[in-house]
Amino acid sequence: MQMNPNKDTQLCMSLSGRPGNFGLRFHNHLYEQLGLNFYYKAFSSQDLPGAVGGIRALGIRGCGVSMPFKEASIALVDELDVSAAAIQSINTIVNTNGHLKAYNTDYIAIAQLLETHAVPKDTTFALRGSGGMAKAVASALRDGGYKNGLIVARNERAGRALADSLGYRWQAELGDERPKMLINVTPVGMDGGPEAGQLSFDVDVIKSADTVFDVVAIPSETPLIVRGRAEGKKVITGLEVIAIQALEQFVLYTGVRPTVEQFDAAVAFARS
Amino acid sequence: MQMNPNKDTQLCMSLSGRPGNFGLRFHNHLYEQLGLNFYYKAFSSQDLPGAVGGIRALGIRGCGVSMPFKEASIALVDELDVSAAAIQSINTIVNTNGHLKAYNTDYIAIAQLLETHAVPKDTTFALRGSGGMAKAVASALRDGGYKNGLIVARNERAGRALADSLGYRWQAELGDERPKMLINVTPVGMDGGPEAGQLSFDVDVIKSADTVFDVVAIPSETPLIVRGRAEGKKVITGLEVIAIQALEQFVLYTGVRPTVEQFDAAVAFARS
Repeated sequence: MQMNPNKDTQLCMSLSGRPGNFGLRFHNHLYEQLGLNFYYKAFSSQDLPGAVGGIRALGIRGCGVSMPFKEASIALVDELDVSAAAIQSINTIVNTNGHLKAYNTDYIAIAQLLETHAVPKDTTFALRGSGGMAKAVASALRDGGYKNGLIVARNERAGRALADSLGYRWQAELGDERPKMLINVTPVGMDGGPEAGQLSFDVDVIKSADTVFDVVAIPSETPLIVRGRAEGKKVITGLEVIAIQALEQFVLYTGVRPTVEQFDAAVAFARS
Repeated sequence: MQMNPNKDTQLCMSLSGRPGNFGLRFHNHLYEQLGLNFYYKAFSSQDLPGAVGGIRALGIRGCGVSMPFKEASIALVDELDVSAAAIQSINTIVNTNGHLKAYNTDYIAIAQLLETHAVPKDTTFALRGSGGMAKAVASALRDGGYKNGLIVARNERAGRALADSLGYRWQAELGDERPKMLINVTPVGMDGGPEAGQLSFDVDVIKSADTVFDVVAIPSETPLIVRGRAEGKKVITGLEVIAIQALEQFVLYTGVRPTVEQFDAAVAFARS
């Protein structure tokens, strides 16, 4: 945070069911490093309309929106960026003089990661999951030109709806398919969840893939990522997703883009 | 502020038409000195119900309420402390798990100052002013047992109403009266106001008084205070009022009472 707060200090915040430390440490560290007069505070709430009304009434500059508010908050903002409109899921609100514009920086981060990791467009992939984040990832894939996709989801209605909306196939299980990119967008492997420590894809499936991509960030080294690394596969981690999406929020809120070195230092600080 | 904000950091705030730096510097300095995981932010708003709704929805722990919100916010809280109920004017909201209780720490500060400065109960006094703060000061005097009071206010309706409600006399001007305590609760002598640099009581009136009390805090050394000091009178300054009312807010928000040394250091820091 800025070391000498004054009456002109701007507030940014997060709103989530279970606040964590990553975002607030990331943003406050960069405010301090870059000398920006901002402060970042994590909030939870039982009253989403009241919370968004407070953002507006108090002139809070920006808000990161996490589970379970990513869909419900859409009705409370004034404008949706293209990154959020197609998915109908937001994770960022930017308040400009009382006008609230919502973005989805998860979508933006995933599109960037597919590009920086140079994943070939004709790669076959299986995406496991059918929730809000799965929608963001699948949409980024579709918009990035990845056509050979399979949505794997036990929830047939949600899985089929997601697949159909983007021109992908759906299956309840992977079966005999051996896609080249494996993407986990479920809580499998997440610390504290019911499937902590578990692999989201079978070992023989991992062996025949080129790339494994896990959006689970706690831990960043999920069983899928650990196994992928051990098998010499290209890996894309949940840490990369949350770090880049936080960076894009930072740029939206402050108008300032940190250097790569500043970004890396903020990620290291936020994780420590 | 606390140097390592995390997800458990509690927010306190102020809400006013024109935010200043005193309160946020006072509170943040004490948070840091006492190692309390709090952060204080000054806000302005055009939407009082939205702002108070935000305090409730976001679990903001406390809010200092300044002009022009001291009366209008009463309808938005759940409970009034005795310090606020009689005056129907609040300057502090404490949020305990969504229950908003409002206080008037100006009233509390003035009652304390009359006691610590050992102003005799039978002192005659003239109080100039008839607004919300005048109400707080006059009520503290009445409740403190000061019976020989005159309210001086050009606004007859407000002045008479205030005087009648507390059992004091009212006059539009001081006339020939020479009370022993002179209290200014108008903007006369306030920097930036239309009567900056002016004396709120005539020199001969000051000469025949024992005590001068000015609630104007910017500057703390108003013409009335400067003249009172020069004439060897007992003086009570607006700085004492805003500092003690801020201290009582701090205690209400955090449950911690700083030492006199910590308080003095915070006041010095907040003014610097």
